[in-house]
Amino acid sequence: MDMKTSGSVRLQGMIHSHRALGEITFVTLRQRRGLIQCLLDSSSEIIGTQQLRDEQAVRVEGVIREEARAPGGQECHVSRIEVLSSPAEPRPIHLGKKMSGPGLDADLELRPITLRHQHYRDMFRLQEGICRGFREYLQQQEFTEIHSPKIVASGAEGGSNIFRLDYFGRKAYLAQSPQFYKQMMVGVYERVFEAGPVFRAEKHSTVRHLNEYTSLDFEMGFIESFEDIMEMEESMLQYVMQLLSRDYAPEISRLEVKLPSAENIPRVTFARAKELVSEKYGRRIRDPFDLEPEEERLIGELFLEEYGSDFVFVTHYPSKKRPFYAMDDPADPRYTLSFDLLLRGLEITTGGQRIHDYEEQKAKMLAKGMDPEGFSDYLMIHKYGMPPHGGLGIGLERLLMMLTGKSNVRQCVLFPRDQSRLEP
Amino acid sequence: MDMKTSGSVRLQGMIHSHRALGEITFVTLRQRRGLIQCLLDSSSEIIGTQQLRDEQAVRVEGVIREEARAPGGQECHVSRIEVLSSPAEPRPIHLGKKMSGPGLDADLELRPITLRHQHYRDMFRLQEGICRGFREYLQQQEFTEIHSPKIVASGAEGGSNIFRLDYFGRKAYLAQSPQFYKQMMVGVYERVFEAGPVFRAEKHSTVRHLNEYTSLDFEMGFIESFEDIMEMEESMLQYVMQLLSRDYAPEISRLEVKLPSAENIPRVTFARAKELVSEKYGRRIRDPFDLEPEEERLIGELFLEEYGSDFVFVTHYPSKKRPFYAMDDPADPRYTLSFDLLLRGLEITTGGQRIHDYEEQKAKMLAKGMDPEGFSDYLMIHKYGMPPHGGLGIGLERLLMMLTGKSNVRQCVLFPRDQSRLEP
Repeated sequence: MDMKTSGSVRLQGMIHSHRALGEITFVTLRQRRGLIQCLLDSSSEIIGTQQLRDEQAVRVEGVIREEARAPGGQECHVSRIEVLSSPAEPRPIHLGKKMSGPGLDADLELRPITLRHQHYRDMFRLQEGICRGFREYLQQQEFTEIHSPKIVASGAEGGSNIFRLDYFGRKAYLAQSPQFYKQMMVGVYERVFEAGPVFRAEKHSTVRHLNEYTSLDFEMGFIESFEDIMEMEESMLQYVMQLLSRDYAPEISRLEVKLPSAENIPRVTFARAKELVSEKYGRRIRDPFDLEPEEERLIGELFLEEYGSDFVFVTHYPSKKRPFYAMDDPADPRYTLSFDLLLRGLEITTGGQRIHDYEEQKAKMLAKGMDPEGFSDYLMIHKYGMPPHGGLGIGLERLLMMLTGKSNVRQCVLFPRDQSRLEP
Repeated sequence: MDMKTSGSVRLQGMIHSHRALGEITFVTLRQRRGLIQCLLDSSSEIIGTQQLRDEQAVRVEGVIREEARAPGGQECHVSRIEVLSSPAEPRPIHLGKKMSGPGLDADLELRPITLRHQHYRDMFRLQEGICRGFREYLQQQEFTEIHSPKIVASGAEGGSNIFRLDYFGRKAYLAQSPQFYKQMMVGVYERVFEAGPVFRAEKHSTVRHLNEYTSLDFEMGFIESFEDIMEMEESMLQYVMQLLSRDYAPEISRLEVKLPSAENIPRVTFARAKELVSEKYGRRIRDPFDLEPEEERLIGELFLEEYGSDFVFVTHYPSKKRPFYAMDDPADPRYTLSFDLLLRGLEITTGGQRIHDYEEQKAKMLAKGMDPEGFSDYLMIHKYGMPPHGGLGIGLERLLMMLTGKSNVRQCVLFPRDQSRLEP
């Protein structure tokens, strides 16, 4: 707000809501950093249109007064309001205090408008804070930010969940992850990160999958163990939680978010985690090399109950469940030097040490039935020299989902893409 | 580097180059923040392999001494060097002081290795600095970072230069820009920005076009004129230049980059710029509504010579050259309230005021032969209310190209995508 003469201010914003109470009209202005209540009475000069309506863009002059009952503890007594633009039709949804009204489908169909709700504004401000913390911390740790291509000649994660496109007559794909490129860049900068879109043509529809999401990736060289990566993630998450509680306190308070502690995150092996869940909850282990979503949830529950931790690292995933670039555990090659991080029972990170030796990488590809010839660009780094290295990818929307306690990840992305949603 | 007992340090890095001079071997280590020279002699203990080779990953113990002739003014006298990994084959290119050897094609084919050259490391550190400055400045100005979808149902820029893909049996496209989404988000946050990939299926191959690039976008509401956007860009660029000169001084020095001043960037209308170039360089104006690349270059030259400015804003582009969402100039509707920013004769930014009124937007779409029905999601914001607003998009690679004086934009992206390049 601009300060004018003798305590008078100029504000601008969209009319978020308004109601007339006798002589007085209460107008809530939506501004870039929050809502503010304005009071108009018969002395207020209204310029530009006879009737105030929601979603008009207005400029206001008035005096700010303390008012404990107003949001933000202040309100503006308006001397003059100018209407800059008006909607063609009334807003199709109510933006009241509580998120209510439309179900998820209607919410997502009207997304450009439902996002104007304070609840969503707060949520996606937290999303910004997560990205900011991720970058700031890694920059302090001498990581370099990279931008890798999203149109690629082959998938990094294998499988059929990859989008195909025609690239000037050639077959091309949308990157499932920046995996190959961030590894290449470890050979250049030793430590790199990227926050960008990834694409998965997953055909199953669940509350925790999106077909396009934002992946927070880092990759680092000269690790002594894959645990170095977990330590980097742990300290990064501590930084993020501090940043959120410091810079986004109003949003956190309104969302009633309880930030998890990322101090001393417990660690458990994949095999042991399955046993613990089996013992505690009396579940039979059906497949020792697979983790079901329900088991994941129970691991989260167990570690919350017994260790008081919202986070838990699950380590040493089975080799057959990890991609060809994952380094096997020399102590037991059925498992890999890898981990997932669970938050409140949901996987939000997958990471691990990668193979850096050329012959070892080629051998593992052949053992998995892959042809190294098709990956000669990627294998260039192994052939010409790479340090021991590893890294991880964090699903931004999933992290936001577990922080804010949402039940569907579609609520945690501005404009979700799933099998039936390509718009808005 | 870790400090060890009594002045001894531990370093790690890749062997960037090495040469034996009699009893002494000089090893240049490539570390995440720079190169450091190491000295081995007969007293140095070598662990892990008999022969040192380029692109081995090594850990070193030794003592740091001042040495004016060494890069960085220091060198490490090595007592112990441990080889952590070795390449399978010798590096196919030399990473000497000067960028030499391979031509552009070979450079790009071997990109994962050529990027290890100090020259490229410096260049892409500057790229990081630009992104960092862009975000930091806009955050200070209360912009919110957004992530918009890259798989979309319709193109924002029109035309045929759009990549098509199959999306679960539906026709979909890769976003040419975040235009629609950043406008939608102005209705939510008033000020938003995004740094992300955009995709253009341009069929013409030039030194300044890429088929995938990183676009730095912002969009802001409650502007009084499109000049507000230019002012925001100008102050953002000033911030970026200050940040680069403060935090990336060694890179700037080695690249011999002369940072342009973004203070008081001159402004000229499109029509006047064409006249000025015609007068000064004796060029006939062939099409008063089109700007040829050569004219763009000459505008840059003229404003450098006559105003000492590397930058120049060219305003009021012809309406037929701008997309359907551009606001026409009420004073002369053949032109729009828009601008390009040229740096050293190349367009690095396109921006302007957008139409916010529903009826006005529909009418302009119809006049351009478009069907508003096909854009109902986008038009939702106009229908339900938008403030006057505008924004811009900056081509990150072009900005880096003009800063570093490169002749081909392909050199200014880690892994370029053009008609013939889908790998690496």
